[in-house]
Amino acid sequence: MATSPTHDSLANAIRFLAVDAVEKANSGHPGLPMGAADLATVLFRDVLKFDAADPHWPDRDRFVLSAGHGSMLLYALLYLTGTGGADGLTLDDLKAFRQVGSRTPGHPEYGHTPGVETTTGPLGQGIATAVGMALAERMLAAHFPSVVDHRTYVLASDGDLMEGLSHEAIAIAGHYRLSRLIVFWDNNDVSIDGKVSVLNDNVDQVARFQAAGWNASHVDGRDAAAILSAVRAAQASDRPTLIACRTTIGFGLPTREGTSKAHGEAAGAAEIEGARKNLNWPYPPFEIPADVLSAWREVGARGAPDHEAWRKRLAELDPARRAEFERRVGGELPAGLDGVIDAYKRELADKAPTIATRKAGEAALAVIAPAVPELVTGSADLTPSNNTKVAATKEITPDDFSGRYIHWGIREHGMAAACNGMAVHGGFIPSGASFLCFTDYARPALRLAALMKIRVVHVFTHDSIGLGEDGPTHQPVEQIASLRAMPNMYLWRPADSVETVECWQAALERAHSPSILALTRQNLPALRKTHVAENLCARGAYEIAPAEGEAAVSIFASGSEVSLAIAAQQILKGKGVAARVVSVPCMDAFFDQPEDYRRSVIGGARVKVGVEAAVRFGWDAIIGDGPFVGMSGFGESGPYKAVYEFFGITPEAVAEAAEARLGA
Amino acid sequence: MATSPTHDSLANAIRFLAVDAVEKANSGHPGLPMGAADLATVLFRDVLKFDAADPHWPDRDRFVLSAGHGSMLLYALLYLTGTGGADGLTLDDLKAFRQVGSRTPGHPEYGHTPGVETTTGPLGQGIATAVGMALAERMLAAHFPSVVDHRTYVLASDGDLMEGLSHEAIAIAGHYRLSRLIVFWDNNDVSIDGKVSVLNDNVDQVARFQAAGWNASHVDGRDAAAILSAVRAAQASDRPTLIACRTTIGFGLPTREGTSKAHGEAAGAAEIEGARKNLNWPYPPFEIPADVLSAWREVGARGAPDHEAWRKRLAELDPARRAEFERRVGGELPAGLDGVIDAYKRELADKAPTIATRKAGEAALAVIAPAVPELVTGSADLTPSNNTKVAATKEITPDDFSGRYIHWGIREHGMAAACNGMAVHGGFIPSGASFLCFTDYARPALRLAALMKIRVVHVFTHDSIGLGEDGPTHQPVEQIASLRAMPNMYLWRPADSVETVECWQAALERAHSPSILALTRQNLPALRKTHVAENLCARGAYEIAPAEGEAAVSIFASGSEVSLAIAAQQILKGKGVAARVVSVPCMDAFFDQPEDYRRSVIGGARVKVGVEAAVRFGWDAIIGDGPFVGMSGFGESGPYKAVYEFFGITPEAVAEAAEARLGA
Repeated sequence: MATSPTHDSLANAIRFLAVDAVEKANSGHPGLPMGAADLATVLFRDVLKFDAADPHWPDRDRFVLSAGHGSMLLYALLYLTGTGGADGLTLDDLKAFRQVGSRTPGHPEYGHTPGVETTTGPLGQGIATAVGMALAERMLAAHFPSVVDHRTYVLASDGDLMEGLSHEAIAIAGHYRLSRLIVFWDNNDVSIDGKVSVLNDNVDQVARFQAAGWNASHVDGRDAAAILSAVRAAQASDRPTLIACRTTIGFGLPTREGTSKAHGEAAGAAEIEGARKNLNWPYPPFEIPADVLSAWREVGARGAPDHEAWRKRLAELDPARRAEFERRVGGELPAGLDGVIDAYKRELADKAPTIATRKAGEAALAVIAPAVPELVTGSADLTPSNNTKVAATKEITPDDFSGRYIHWGIREHGMAAACNGMAVHGGFIPSGASFLCFTDYARPALRLAALMKIRVVHVFTHDSIGLGEDGPTHQPVEQIASLRAMPNMYLWRPADSVETVECWQAALERAHSPSILALTRQNLPALRKTHVAENLCARGAYEIAPAEGEAAVSIFASGSEVSLAIAAQQILKGKGVAARVVSVPCMDAFFDQPEDYRRSVIGGARVKVGVEAAVRFGWDAIIGDGPFVGMSGFGESGPYKAVYEFFGITPEAVAEAAEARLGA
Repeated sequence: MATSPTHDSLANAIRFLAVDAVEKANSGHPGLPMGAADLATVLFRDVLKFDAADPHWPDRDRFVLSAGHGSMLLYALLYLTGTGGADGLTLDDLKAFRQVGSRTPGHPEYGHTPGVETTTGPLGQGIATAVGMALAERMLAAHFPSVVDHRTYVLASDGDLMEGLSHEAIAIAGHYRLSRLIVFWDNNDVSIDGKVSVLNDNVDQVARFQAAGWNASHVDGRDAAAILSAVRAAQASDRPTLIACRTTIGFGLPTREGTSKAHGEAAGAAEIEGARKNLNWPYPPFEIPADVLSAWREVGARGAPDHEAWRKRLAELDPARRAEFERRVGGELPAGLDGVIDAYKRELADKAPTIATRKAGEAALAVIAPAVPELVTGSADLTPSNNTKVAATKEITPDDFSGRYIHWGIREHGMAAACNGMAVHGGFIPSGASFLCFTDYARPALRLAALMKIRVVHVFTHDSIGLGEDGPTHQPVEQIASLRAMPNMYLWRPADSVETVECWQAALERAHSPSILALTRQNLPALRKTHVAENLCARGAYEIAPAEGEAAVSIFASGSEVSLAIAAQQILKGKGVAARVVSVPCMDAFFDQPEDYRRSVIGGARVKVGVEAAVRFGWDAIIGDGPFVGMSGFGESGPYKAVYEFFGITPEAVAEAAEARLGA
């Protein structure tokens, strides 16, 4: 009987698939897979709970390659273990690495390749997303303990740990004592600019993680036994763990090993030939010996019994709870939500409250959260300002994960990335909150949510100069435009209470897009005083106040400026000018509509005016060269009414702009 | 003879100016000034080198209130010390706190209030900007040691230290061993959401800073002697220092002291009355006893002899070196720059190189950097990709600050914030570099540069899907639009070598705006083969390829798509359609032009087509409802030519779009 392949053979299979694929593409990163193949082998062979036949098994351990540039490490592992079965990566997929349309793009992409848990590449995102996965595991386990019991493993690079995002992420994980989170640091001492010492000779990462409440230790990243023993210790800990693995970038490459040349370019035939000799791997490119492949496939099948036992535990759940678990993990909204929202809209139409939309958002959440148990809210230390905490969303604490409100701390980026992690983990619709201006801090994670097509619904309040006294550092003027410019990101800016709940509903219904609700600090009058069953906001724009007779003027506005537009309409009416007002709660959704809808909403009035307390950028697509009343620079500190006056964003100014153009 | 006022009286003067101003505005943050008044008193009275009569003295110590929400602490200090003399803040200014048009806006604004060293408020920015100031001090001292010898002090809050940016900042400071940087942490244990323990019970800040190579110690923030002794130890250290000051937020307020209620709202008459009793301060609002004011004014005058001695040292400099120092600190460009650039443009017009604009940028820098000694370049660990290192820009190291190239590490945000700090410090034109997609990581600091009206010229390469294989995580599609949307930020996207150097020149000439140069990874043909002395790019857009006869079509493009537009023009010509091509290297600068220039460049052709390998958002302002050839979603991993083909961004597609619209 043949002996089973050695550890080195298993690791070399990863190494050479990686260098050969990079070589074929003449593009990519051989250095990390060569250096980290040993620890990846230990992790997949001896540690990770997974069943390659079903990469969607909800109770699998998650593996996040935070250093996404080392994508060939992951693709090699997915191929070798047979992840995804018939849908899994083939050798041909590996040969198509970094080609248009392939399943092996330059960086791992969620939803694109079976077994890829999250999109990585922008550094720091993987580790921060993994924090959200680990949090989701604890929170889901608090409600479904018999079927949720797994860990999250991360492979992070120097770059991941240099990014500020890593600080936010490890602080959150340390605070919540996420002991099921285990991070391997690929400590190879090499950076693109040279030795890491050129730019980071000072940071003691082990001490740094310990200062954040983590366990942390050093191991030799070539020593399989030492790695495994460090993992076992980490699994037994009551804290998250960093395992600093000393590795050699480009391990085996004759001249590039241990240098920045090994990092991000094809190694070339001579280097690869030399590595084949050095590492005793005499096989041609893309050829894996049958015994090695078979050993790897056994690794892939290793979790099948666990998976089967889990299926039994799932089957033993009370049918209603099982259905609820499956609904939540499947990402379906509760059946009763529409009825709850309709009843609430009827109530609002009668009450017609004058209220800030942040308060309207709180009231909407008080209705939605009880009906949507998977909705998790929170705030980046602005709970009393964002108004995202309601009775149904009890706080989680390090000792009790049964709640669903998260105090993220002043960590907008860490919050947004962790929300992404909760969404890709499954079982939750996460929602963070801060001031709209500070979307800038979270933008790389917001972008990844859009790219991954995941449902995350953030609440960003204080959405314009209308926040007043805090002044230009806190007043968004360009953020609305910059978020509208982001593909697949939906920015909702409701004008009153009814629009607020409609925007919440529309955002929740978009299973494949993240949304941002931009809400005001200042009070706004009720505009929607007649109940309409249809969600008018969902189509992005609609006529909220028709003209009497044929409109000479159309006024387009969003959020707090819709009431101002309606006041302008009244002024114009007094002067005999018929104007209509279109509310544009979501320009992104509006541009998705069929052309006939867009045309009918934009209408044929001679003059089209836009009004928004923000920059004009992007509005031309609706108003053409019509006048725009808004901001052309940064804001000003002062009581909000005075600030609106100062910048001339008033009903009078809108009416005048329309009249001037009519007369032109 | 009267005894001099006690420490408590001096500190109380700050406290009550702060609470009274917040009370009058009914808006603001009394908690920090009440808690941190003691340490601020020690710092200004006993430590800070400054001369209130001249807040622009180049060799003053810098004080950065990173916790910008505590602005009244700073405004009180500026008033009490008489900073700015006749131009300084008055009691009336303090009474106008947070009012439109006042000199005392909600958060401190650089360039708006004498003595404010940098705009703060968005958390983490102050400490990271201060790192740049401390770096600038060392770098300027390396060349002008007799007149540059000062320190940078920071007051940072819990929020500053939670933000990821702080991690990048302290890592940079630790790496370069910026021993003249001393940070006070206002350790008050209170956050908006409650006790800090609710969201950060785990991070040991002192251990964290030590892990980054800092000194760090704890002191009682009420104990003036202990604070002073900690500062003296810090001044003697060879490392940057964190002094963790245990303080009480809202110190003296009867019921709010030590609670989150003290943080961010007017305390109310009863609380303030109680505080007056508790702190033995019987004076009415805004009244400072004469002896206290006089003692503070003496503090303000304390540095005058130092300043005078400095003036003498400056006068003793060799006249040419003195003139050079004054030119650099005054922010004037060298007189010879235009000639150097003109000669280089002539050379380029002859050579007509086919070259990536990132390489063209390197070549331009090789010409510009020797002529502009204050220009500092660097990269966030992408030196071989960004091409911003040239012979004239020697690297700085922790032991030698005489160079002017900075290895920032993978810290885009820390880089951008530190560049802001170098710019506001004076003596430098800083320039960072990374991939354009990762402007997202740096956005809050980019925004502050725009708000502060400072000259920072970043180089962001790999500016579109044209980067190819790295795929959608690295391919900017919306970043160009989102940066154009930012007020006072100039995004330059040159089309060839000549445009690249023109864009560099135009960016350098904008003394009051930051710029971003967006450069390609892929090669581009030379387009500007005839020398034109005028900087055509400076006006933002110009006709680069006229039509033969009257144009039926105008094609507008930027950067890598200009050559593609010209190829489309040729296709159309072959079909008998006269088209002109307009290069739009900087939409921001173009929109600044007088209307007649804009009209003449946009022209009257029947069809206006836009082409840019990015989203359409914003282009309507130029092309109206004309066709646009570009991106409508995220990119794709593959060789760049295949990616352009995949998305249909080709000369043929542009020509077809124009023809289709002509025929419509």
